[in-house]
Amino acid sequence: MSPDDRSNRLELVELYAPIVGGLARVEAEFRSLTENKKAGFPALYQMLCHVLVGGKVLRPVLTLLSAGCFNGETDRIVPLATASELLHIATLVHDDAIDKADTRRGKPTVSKLWGLEKAILLGDFLFARAGEFAAATGNLHVVRLFARTLQIISSGELRQSFAAFSPEQSYEHYLERIAGKTAALFVLATEGGAVLAGATDDGVKALHDYGYNLGLAFQIVDDILDFTGDEKEMGKPVGSDLRQGTITLPALLLMQRSPGDNPVDRLIRGEDREANIARTVSLVRGGDIIEQCYAVARGYRDRACGVLDSLPDSPARRSLMELADYVIRRDR
Amino acid sequence: MSPDDRSNRLELVELYAPIVGGLARVEAEFRSLTENKKAGFPALYQMLCHVLVGGKVLRPVLTLLSAGCFNGETDRIVPLATASELLHIATLVHDDAIDKADTRRGKPTVSKLWGLEKAILLGDFLFARAGEFAAATGNLHVVRLFARTLQIISSGELRQSFAAFSPEQSYEHYLERIAGKTAALFVLATEGGAVLAGATDDGVKALHDYGYNLGLAFQIVDDILDFTGDEKEMGKPVGSDLRQGTITLPALLLMQRSPGDNPVDRLIRGEDREANIARTVSLVRGGDIIEQCYAVARGYRDRACGVLDSLPDSPARRSLMELADYVIRRDR
Repeated sequence: MSPDDRSNRLELVELYAPIVGGLARVEAEFRSLTENKKAGFPALYQMLCHVLVGGKVLRPVLTLLSAGCFNGETDRIVPLATASELLHIATLVHDDAIDKADTRRGKPTVSKLWGLEKAILLGDFLFARAGEFAAATGNLHVVRLFARTLQIISSGELRQSFAAFSPEQSYEHYLERIAGKTAALFVLATEGGAVLAGATDDGVKALHDYGYNLGLAFQIVDDILDFTGDEKEMGKPVGSDLRQGTITLPALLLMQRSPGDNPVDRLIRGEDREANIARTVSLVRGGDIIEQCYAVARGYRDRACGVLDSLPDSPARRSLMELADYVIRRDR
Repeated sequence: MSPDDRSNRLELVELYAPIVGGLARVEAEFRSLTENKKAGFPALYQMLCHVLVGGKVLRPVLTLLSAGCFNGETDRIVPLATASELLHIATLVHDDAIDKADTRRGKPTVSKLWGLEKAILLGDFLFARAGEFAAATGNLHVVRLFARTLQIISSGELRQSFAAFSPEQSYEHYLERIAGKTAALFVLATEGGAVLAGATDDGVKALHDYGYNLGLAFQIVDDILDFTGDEKEMGKPVGSDLRQGTITLPALLLMQRSPGDNPVDRLIRGEDREANIARTVSLVRGGDIIEQCYAVARGYRDRACGVLDSLPDSPARRSLMELADYVIRRDR
């Protein structure tokens, strides 16, 4: 563990203080979901062990902290926290299968280890288990929000897939895509948490807006890290998005600066792929584009924190504020 | 249209008489779901047109008839009928992607036309839309049943995938697989329909059992038709299951008759694939195995009809009885 690594962990530990009990219960759900298959279906057990270990559990954290702003009891929050992480993992498993990615979080992907067929089916299984946990909240608002979230995510992925290497790229399309890809799932966690904790309509709206803006900030930083990150820290190669034909904010800004005459446009036109990816990464890293992207991300972070001002102070609210800073500061 | 074809259609028209209004509303839901994408997302519109047209809509029929046994109003039944068909189509889209199938119902598959990536994402989108319709019933029993059904289907598919070309094949494994693959979705339609129509616990149980047994009978006939069907009528090649390594009832019975010394075992051992598939099809068609399989299917059909005896007579109940006969009689 590097010193940087250690300081990241410590920060998160402090953030998580108000919800350690809830998080332990989410992890227990994962363990029981996995262990249940050990005897009867050992192959599935192995796949579950592989995917359910080692994530940042950011979505459960968001769910529990959002509920914590309203002092709700956690019995019905834990199933939603579990559902939001399972849904997240299911989309990652399908994404990696589609992208033919070899590694995720520094480990081989499911599709790499077990093949495409098993990856599709494991993703479907995780969607289903996520749905069962959402249903276990016993709350129809949350169930509808869950189904709608899956729909927004899958339409977003479809749009991204049809837009790959497309010459029509705009900031609006980019925002729409990352809203569908990331912010929707953050909203499920934060709005759902507020609903289950019995928040008023205004409280639910505040947590909806927090999740949405934090999700945008989070994804923009993810897209920055795809250019600036350390390959080992990130657990996947630099420039992965470009390789898939996905044009994110840094590449978009580069295109806007020299319309037509830049390596991203050349990549889109199908010219020498690896050389243009390397050239794009180098130009983005060399100039002030990264700083400009961070400024956009901080803008959404500020909006996220701004809406929390309407809520009474609490340890959970303070953690949500700090989490928003962490999302900008993180290096992977 | 052949004379046989015409008589099949007429029978179905009579069966559907008690629910024509409901079926029209399900089709309207499909139309509106598709048309909604026409302007904003034309690529998705085209894919939806391709998959949402021309099925037997058997699951909506089951949902509406099951509800019809209890005189429930149809407002909340239509969303479940729609959800059950969308869930069915979603699983077909993923199945075809996994099996690398070229045709389905005589048309090219989604994965053939748009590629694997789009097929995975379209399947996910349809799961999501199905989930939204299930949530629109506003009934938590139905929502839980829906999530559980998706889980049973996806575990079943995973089991089938891990069991492909496996030497361990038994009647029990086969039943377990077809229960997960087909009967679970029938149960969603029939039990869910009964629940939404306000049936008593006994009524719900009866419709659960009807759907389960009918599903088994239906899948056994499907597996028979994979051996005996006309390639053009079926819209897919004969022996498709064997080609995927899926050992169904006819092949299982052949294995039991000459343990070790038969073309199915040779296929499993990886010997000359096409020759052993052709030999299996020919042996199954030539002997009395098909009749034996039909006897098993009729046994489940009889159980399905038997449980309906506990319900008062009604046009919907009569249609469910006739539908059970049709499931055995159909030739595709």
